[in-house]
Amino acid sequence: MAAVSPHPFDPLRPEEISRASRIVRPHFGGQDPNFRVITLLEPSKKEMIPFLEKEHHKQPAGHVPTRYARVEVVIKGSDGKNQLFELIVDLDNDRVTRKQHIKGKHSYIDADYMKAVEAACLGNEEVQAEIRTLNLPAGATVVVEPWAYATDGVNDMTDRVTMCWFYLRLLENPDANYYAYPLDVCAEVSEKLEVTKVYRLPTKPSERINNEKKPFDRRKIHSTAASEYHPDLRPNPRTTTKPYQVVQPEGPSFRIQGNQLKWEKWSFRVGFNYREGLTLHDIRYDGRSCFYRLSLAEMFVPYGDPRAPYPRKAAFDLGNDGAGINANNLQLGCDCLGTIKYFDAYHNTPSGEPLKMPNVVCCHEQDDGILWKHTNFRTQNPVVTRSRILVLQTIITVSNYEYIFAWHFRQDASIFYEVRATGILSTVPTDVDVKEKIPYGTVVAPGVLAPYHQHLFSLRIDPAIDGPFNSLVIDESKPLPVGDPSVHNPFGVGYVTESQMIEEEGGFDLDFTKNRDFKFVNEKKINPITGTPVGFKLLPAYSQMLLSHPDSYHAKRSEFADHAVWITRYEDYDFFPAGKYTMQSTGGDGLASAIARRRNNGTTQSIRDQDIVIWHTFGSTHNPRIEDWPVMPNEKLMVGLKPVNFFSGNPSLDVAVSTQDKNKSVLYNGDEEKAACCPSRL
Amino acid sequence: MAAVSPHPFDPLRPEEISRASRIVRPHFGGQDPNFRVITLLEPSKKEMIPFLEKEHHKQPAGHVPTRYARVEVVIKGSDGKNQLFELIVDLDNDRVTRKQHIKGKHSYIDADYMKAVEAACLGNEEVQAEIRTLNLPAGATVVVEPWAYATDGVNDMTDRVTMCWFYLRLLENPDANYYAYPLDVCAEVSEKLEVTKVYRLPTKPSERINNEKKPFDRRKIHSTAASEYHPDLRPNPRTTTKPYQVVQPEGPSFRIQGNQLKWEKWSFRVGFNYREGLTLHDIRYDGRSCFYRLSLAEMFVPYGDPRAPYPRKAAFDLGNDGAGINANNLQLGCDCLGTIKYFDAYHNTPSGEPLKMPNVVCCHEQDDGILWKHTNFRTQNPVVTRSRILVLQTIITVSNYEYIFAWHFRQDASIFYEVRATGILSTVPTDVDVKEKIPYGTVVAPGVLAPYHQHLFSLRIDPAIDGPFNSLVIDESKPLPVGDPSVHNPFGVGYVTESQMIEEEGGFDLDFTKNRDFKFVNEKKINPITGTPVGFKLLPAYSQMLLSHPDSYHAKRSEFADHAVWITRYEDYDFFPAGKYTMQSTGGDGLASAIARRRNNGTTQSIRDQDIVIWHTFGSTHNPRIEDWPVMPNEKLMVGLKPVNFFSGNPSLDVAVSTQDKNKSVLYNGDEEKAACCPSRL
Repeated sequence: MAAVSPHPFDPLRPEEISRASRIVRPHFGGQDPNFRVITLLEPSKKEMIPFLEKEHHKQPAGHVPTRYARVEVVIKGSDGKNQLFELIVDLDNDRVTRKQHIKGKHSYIDADYMKAVEAACLGNEEVQAEIRTLNLPAGATVVVEPWAYATDGVNDMTDRVTMCWFYLRLLENPDANYYAYPLDVCAEVSEKLEVTKVYRLPTKPSERINNEKKPFDRRKIHSTAASEYHPDLRPNPRTTTKPYQVVQPEGPSFRIQGNQLKWEKWSFRVGFNYREGLTLHDIRYDGRSCFYRLSLAEMFVPYGDPRAPYPRKAAFDLGNDGAGINANNLQLGCDCLGTIKYFDAYHNTPSGEPLKMPNVVCCHEQDDGILWKHTNFRTQNPVVTRSRILVLQTIITVSNYEYIFAWHFRQDASIFYEVRATGILSTVPTDVDVKEKIPYGTVVAPGVLAPYHQHLFSLRIDPAIDGPFNSLVIDESKPLPVGDPSVHNPFGVGYVTESQMIEEEGGFDLDFTKNRDFKFVNEKKINPITGTPVGFKLLPAYSQMLLSHPDSYHAKRSEFADHAVWITRYEDYDFFPAGKYTMQSTGGDGLASAIARRRNNGTTQSIRDQDIVIWHTFGSTHNPRIEDWPVMPNEKLMVGLKPVNFFSGNPSLDVAVSTQDKNKSVLYNGDEEKAACCPSRL
Repeated sequence: MAAVSPHPFDPLRPEEISRASRIVRPHFGGQDPNFRVITLLEPSKKEMIPFLEKEHHKQPAGHVPTRYARVEVVIKGSDGKNQLFELIVDLDNDRVTRKQHIKGKHSYIDADYMKAVEAACLGNEEVQAEIRTLNLPAGATVVVEPWAYATDGVNDMTDRVTMCWFYLRLLENPDANYYAYPLDVCAEVSEKLEVTKVYRLPTKPSERINNEKKPFDRRKIHSTAASEYHPDLRPNPRTTTKPYQVVQPEGPSFRIQGNQLKWEKWSFRVGFNYREGLTLHDIRYDGRSCFYRLSLAEMFVPYGDPRAPYPRKAAFDLGNDGAGINANNLQLGCDCLGTIKYFDAYHNTPSGEPLKMPNVVCCHEQDDGILWKHTNFRTQNPVVTRSRILVLQTIITVSNYEYIFAWHFRQDASIFYEVRATGILSTVPTDVDVKEKIPYGTVVAPGVLAPYHQHLFSLRIDPAIDGPFNSLVIDESKPLPVGDPSVHNPFGVGYVTESQMIEEEGGFDLDFTKNRDFKFVNEKKINPITGTPVGFKLLPAYSQMLLSHPDSYHAKRSEFADHAVWITRYEDYDFFPAGKYTMQSTGGDGLASAIARRRNNGTTQSIRDQDIVIWHTFGSTHNPRIEDWPVMPNEKLMVGLKPVNFFSGNPSLDVAVSTQDKNKSVLYNGDEEKAACCPSRL
């Protein structure tokens, strides 16, 4: 047992995971449960608010919330089909407090099962026969990439269906990029690991069914220099990039106790779970509450190719795959630069034992250029401070793609959330001979189409601006009218802001043409100087919303992707803007449905000056460039949270001025005088 | 004489500045010319294209463009009024090739003249009488801040008019923040340094004329901790920020010869002039031409308070003030971190001698996190590269405000332009007693209103995508229709891109809801793999455009601020989207007028596959937060330029993998085990 009790926000400890599975196992008799999830059930906010109040006032804890685990178990039913159960386990009293059979839903993707699907697919004679028709190059290896089936209405969704996409690894090296050789074979595998369908993929722009069964076109074979990213398979790398090191002679500026982090007036707790990955809790600046919880809540990646079966490519990378379970083991000096604190996480094995996931989060500081500067032009005296940021980074690999997620804390009390998309494009085969432009993607190599797709993220923001009861205000900047005798605007240059307090749950759109601002305010706390409620505002990432038709399964399944900003009333465990179970979901589980349900059953209440949650949908319509191939230079997206009339002035005003004594920069006087820069005219 | 001839893009050298003034002086007889500008007249593009071709192919130069200076001179006319002349000087043949009297226009702000205005204003008896009515605290100093007059139609614009705003410096220290004490006195000073009007400013929301002449309200006096930014005037700074140093043991990755910079396959030339400040020329990646010239072309800062005389606050910070002339002398270890190359610039004194401006540009590298990463989930082998960026930074101080401008070059062949706004808000006085919300600004201290305003930048992009002849394409991502039998979209998820080639000059708006992309392409160069023209795209900063009424002087004077993207046909010396002479301009000199003029006089030609220029308008509607006071933590804006199907793959694919051996990161194992994180429950 650990010497110190966990904080209520701390993820489950290894011994708690073991304990939970020990408590759960007897509830399934002699059956062998497949433990998919053993994770912290976060305490209710009602319990946590007084707990945190006491904690921050250094008072005795009093009531400590019970420690609960949420457990997902899959059992083989008497009909041979999988049954999903959710259990709530009271770890303080060693008992199961709830056991629920979740009918008609699936747990997230099971990596072991996916391996079995691969093996079943490759072992199938019909598949092998189809492969033989391809007449593949000798020595090449067929690679099967199983994907969760995105609901398209064709199959009954009671059972799991797996789509198997085929690629060719031309080289022996197992790190060779097989996405460079997509094959036009496709197979569907059932829950029971039966291959239920084998067919060829369309390879022409307007093709609906590919009946040609052409062999693999040798003209698709191209240089490894163009398609490989692994250094073992590439020519020598460039040598011009000189080393760049970060030195912190007095150590980092952060302090860490358990999962609590303190840095430059910020304090918060680091959480982690299999699904959302990194979560942040109880975020305060200079002791004042700003946010109760921040997390990436969901992510939807639908592909835009209308030809069957491509509409089945649409991934919920959190709900289906899990940002936690797919988090990388980050390596010192590779993924992070400087003085690095790593956080480990614990998941569980199928048998319910703790599974250590080392280094899933790295924490470090970065220099971010100038924080603020002013030169008094009368005295010519400059005052300049440098901006330091604290970064908490986690990276996930979801098959071909990677996402780099990073929270940035700044000294000026702003928080930014950065997403970088990198990794390898998911490719499909196309005919080398097709001359017309394929309207659904970009040809990135001979016979390789990188299809258009979207990445739509949902960032869940649970504000606690000086307390749990907040309101959402939408501000716009509007010109004053001209020619209206009741309005003083003689020169036509006046403008004002108009504010709308949001009274009901709903979804809203961005409009930069109106300078539309979304602010979370505490109407009860008025800034004594500005005379306005204290608040934070969202700096959104302007993004196209979902392109799929509202009646499509894509749209029904990803309701959050319809508007950029949603506001809902806080409810415990309401973390899922596309529903709790997204695997083969059929829709109606998302934000819009929940709001409509509450409206229809009369439980809607005003959300003004209430405990509210803001969900920001953002992302990219990713129509690939060839520059994204064979591995994509990161594409950044940035969302921000900034105080607005929350403090009584610039919170970073007390940052010490920047000095060479501390920064030890080096003057470069290199080769500039050496040679002529252009042919002499003399 | 220098040993090496200047490159045609090099700014004038000191001896060239002296030579130009020597050549010009005799053209004004016995008069004493005030040399406002002696700057390089950049060679015509027609001459430069063959010159650059030869240079890059290492062929003998052949014809070298003549070295010309552009000179602005102000002469006191026989009527006692200033006359502005522009002269073109052939420095190779020591002669003036053009001399033009620019009637009815003013050169940019003359700092010496502004000092004289201050002195004249403070020396005026009417001003002093008005100050006496304020009954100011003993020992306080009145500070006069002269501003260029923004045309409002009230005054004849033939002569210069200067607006004098009054502030109080309460403390003896000359670096005390007098913007914390705006006074309600205002004066107007004529070209001849006569005070033509003294009056009181409105201090109530709907006030039009302030006839109260109240004394200075002592309740406005507040703590220095809230209003001072200079460390000498503040409590001790925070001590938690530990030193952070950048070490480059093998030196930087860039190479510099004269003004040519080479870094990670990039090459370009650094230019600098009094008006635009930093300019970039002949930008190539891996030897291929990308851009002919990149520069910030203009900047407009109109204030939104409709009450006279505030509509006269609207600054063209490039045209009126000059981004070059106001560039900071950057200090090692303060403004820049790491191994720093500084560039100096030369302006001229009023008497025509060279004036050295040291360290106006700093050049250094930064680590930018991960460039690209992929982990093969089958082998668990990660490959990760770190992103290095090259930064060219320049900082300007324009009275109260500062702007930090930085070009970022990335290894993936993208370029970003970052603007950070910092410095001190321009303040106006307001009544302490007013209880109603003032709709034109934010109260940041007792009696201090920080008015709403906009910052609107114009970034001039002269593309040369594989050559000078390019086209602008607007792409949008559009859902395929559902239910149209001629379109295959059975699942409602298909989408395609639609492209529109722009045929005529004009202004365009952004629309993220359509994923509207602006691409500059070379229609004659087809990417052999993608089958599409090679190009770059603009990553715009989504911003509200000008709020002033189209009939207002603000709008007429800042035509570029009406649309986010403009395309014009390239013309030599067409660098000014709000006109060449913006000081007290009356409008009709901007982009829209030039386009209309060409359309009306029949000289419009197709701009498709022609030499084109793209102008991106972006900025912020800055409704101050109290957090921006007394000095503003930087607010960042970012614009990008990214290759789109320009290369044959990821240009940064050959960047070496990241290794701890080179990066020398440090593992932090600090204080985490030391203490309990919460009250023990045991």
